[in-house]
Amino acid sequence: MKTMTGMTKRLFDPAAVQADEGVQVHGMVHTLRDLGDVRFMLLRMPGGVLQCVLSGDEFDVREGDAVRAQGKMVRDARAPGGTELHVSALEVLSRAAEPMPVPIGKNKMNLTLDTDLALRFVTLRNLRRRAVFKVQEGIVRGFRQALEREGFTEIHTPKIVAQNAEGGANLFRMEYFGRRAYLAQSPQFYKQALVPVYERVFEIGPVFRAEKHNTQRHLNEYTSMDFEMGFIDGFEDVMQMETKVLQTIMRVLEADYAPQLRVLGVTLPRVDAIPAVRFDEAKRLVSERYQRPIRDPFDLEPEEEQLISRLFEEEYGSEFVFVTHYPSKKRPFYAADDPQDPRYTLSFDLLFRGLEVTTGGQRIHDYQTQVEKMRKKGLDPADFEGYLMIHKYGTCPHGGLGLGLERLTARLLGENNVREACMFPRDQQRMEP
Amino acid sequence: MKTMTGMTKRLFDPAAVQADEGVQVHGMVHTLRDLGDVRFMLLRMPGGVLQCVLSGDEFDVREGDAVRAQGKMVRDARAPGGTELHVSALEVLSRAAEPMPVPIGKNKMNLTLDTDLALRFVTLRNLRRRAVFKVQEGIVRGFRQALEREGFTEIHTPKIVAQNAEGGANLFRMEYFGRRAYLAQSPQFYKQALVPVYERVFEIGPVFRAEKHNTQRHLNEYTSMDFEMGFIDGFEDVMQMETKVLQTIMRVLEADYAPQLRVLGVTLPRVDAIPAVRFDEAKRLVSERYQRPIRDPFDLEPEEEQLISRLFEEEYGSEFVFVTHYPSKKRPFYAADDPQDPRYTLSFDLLFRGLEVTTGGQRIHDYQTQVEKMRKKGLDPADFEGYLMIHKYGTCPHGGLGLGLERLTARLLGENNVREACMFPRDQQRMEP
Repeated sequence: MKTMTGMTKRLFDPAAVQADEGVQVHGMVHTLRDLGDVRFMLLRMPGGVLQCVLSGDEFDVREGDAVRAQGKMVRDARAPGGTELHVSALEVLSRAAEPMPVPIGKNKMNLTLDTDLALRFVTLRNLRRRAVFKVQEGIVRGFRQALEREGFTEIHTPKIVAQNAEGGANLFRMEYFGRRAYLAQSPQFYKQALVPVYERVFEIGPVFRAEKHNTQRHLNEYTSMDFEMGFIDGFEDVMQMETKVLQTIMRVLEADYAPQLRVLGVTLPRVDAIPAVRFDEAKRLVSERYQRPIRDPFDLEPEEEQLISRLFEEEYGSEFVFVTHYPSKKRPFYAADDPQDPRYTLSFDLLFRGLEVTTGGQRIHDYQTQVEKMRKKGLDPADFEGYLMIHKYGTCPHGGLGLGLERLTARLLGENNVREACMFPRDQQRMEP
Repeated sequence: MKTMTGMTKRLFDPAAVQADEGVQVHGMVHTLRDLGDVRFMLLRMPGGVLQCVLSGDEFDVREGDAVRAQGKMVRDARAPGGTELHVSALEVLSRAAEPMPVPIGKNKMNLTLDTDLALRFVTLRNLRRRAVFKVQEGIVRGFRQALEREGFTEIHTPKIVAQNAEGGANLFRMEYFGRRAYLAQSPQFYKQALVPVYERVFEIGPVFRAEKHNTQRHLNEYTSMDFEMGFIDGFEDVMQMETKVLQTIMRVLEADYAPQLRVLGVTLPRVDAIPAVRFDEAKRLVSERYQRPIRDPFDLEPEEEQLISRLFEEEYGSEFVFVTHYPSKKRPFYAADDPQDPRYTLSFDLLFRGLEVTTGGQRIHDYQTQVEKMRKKGLDPADFEGYLMIHKYGTCPHGGLGLGLERLTARLLGENNVREACMFPRDQQRMEP
């Protein structure tokens, strides 16, 4: 008898069990189907579901219960995974108090997004929902793995801050022991401060934006995967590092998350050398190709992002495209200007399947240059005395980026609404569950 | 010539370089010592420092500059690491604007904690300071590695919440689009909700406590390493998992962070089977042994925690001790009561070198039991309708814990003030940098 419970228990893997072997397993009763003299019980386990065969009405068990079952593994091509458990003993460890409010056992639950999100504590038990956030875990693991190999140091920086890098209206304010504080829009200042310390740093953590956009692309709290690296020769080094990161993410997903990708019916994109195009050039190309007038010369409209992606997929077969040299006007004060033409910055966005998933670029490293750019932007350097210590006491040429975890997950899984790729999304209407 | 820069550059490791080999390296000028006809320049690099020898006044370089240097590696027993770089060419990539405000090149900077923290963007460049947070990275890596191997799923849960698990006065309030919201005290509700989904989950992220304690042990924002696991036989399973986690952390530190531990002069504690003692028994033992009256029968005073640690180190040679069965009165509503004596809970704290670093225990999994305990605590179950979905629609016996990253780091490194183990601490007086 192979025991899968107790102090030394390991997660059950049906593939590791021989046919006709006796086993003891535990899991949540995912679904129960009563065929009269036989009942099929699907047990939900971390790695998948196990079909269990119960004879007649021998055991008092209901959907939502937590059970421990004992029996023999039997090959049956009709069972998911090709084996099923013929149950000889069953113990209910905990009982559900009420029947499921929604059919979590179905492949597609057919709920409105509102209902789905309101019932998230239940709907995440659905196998497709669950797979989404397992894949998300894989993305995070890939990001981390790539950067650890490249010598990056992981950091944890505060989310309650006195000042934000991008300022503006989209800040969440709070009271902090009688003073005004903000929630961090990004770890920008901190990761820059740590470049002269560790040369390369990364952080995966929450960021907060009080944007009033109610779109499919915006969340008011999201997980940002940030890195910053020193001694770069140009912002191209940062793009190259991101390419490596994405390649590692896809490798990790392919190797360790194939069952979840199968549940979701997802094919991974190829990540080769990612094409790059200048901002102004991208605007022009799209305008010509799709007969679309340029309305805002300083920013990309969502539709333009979609069309740039479409064009580069049609022309180069790449679902990723870097758009470089964004106008200085639209980039924050720490962005390094292009010495060739200071109306543009040494910066980039990464578009993936029509959506911006990354903003990055080279930062200003020279103290005087940074002070002057602040002044040009109408900012008072005295307000940034703390931040400017980085430059004053010396840093190296550096750059970095922020990659939005939920956006990347959503586009990877073909979800249009970023809320589908956030366990518990925060938007203007929603702060629960 | 081994080139260490450019697009394919890797981090420089002096140990990997042959003597008399030509190399090109980059780094921050950590210190400069002028001996007249020769100058010693210590380059700060991610893995350590490299001693560079410059002849006379050949190069215009200052402390805080970022440089690229070329030359030959030469063995010299007096150099840190046993080799030094005889520089033949030097390029300044970025200049510091002013001399360092504090002697970051010294082993001990002899600053007050206030000055150190106010100048953190500079003082973290000190090799000891930098080593502290590299070790902290190792702790996080060990925690994650242990749990990944045990089949835990990594999650990311919101920090802006409508409700908190522990309630009380120590909540940070904020306005969220015209409604009142709070910063999350812990991911408690979310990790419990995800047990019936993934069985085992963990999260490493910020938590927020508006505590007005101004002690060496409290931070108002800290990094909590949380896990929650299903299908436990008792809270002892959670303690056993924590023991494994701590063992993995020490192994990771020993294997990958030896240079930093050496810089800090730290010896790692042994983690064998960690002794456990009941709360009431611990109080009695300490009271008897150290002739100390019991003042608060429901909670441990900081001095009692220190004495319990001292006693168990003297008696069992363990620097860790679990204190179990805390009074129900002092534990939150979700704590499972001991069926033998419901005045106590199936819970524990972990003390490490006199300080509580973990709180954990078994949670209530049964819907009715949870509703009744809420009522007994004076809470209205209607206020927790969302949370109670977990129990209503079925969960399994489960438990978990939260391990404070900064406290664990501080005790490991022998720092009395937890602020020393937080890059950018938040307390009543401090929200910058």
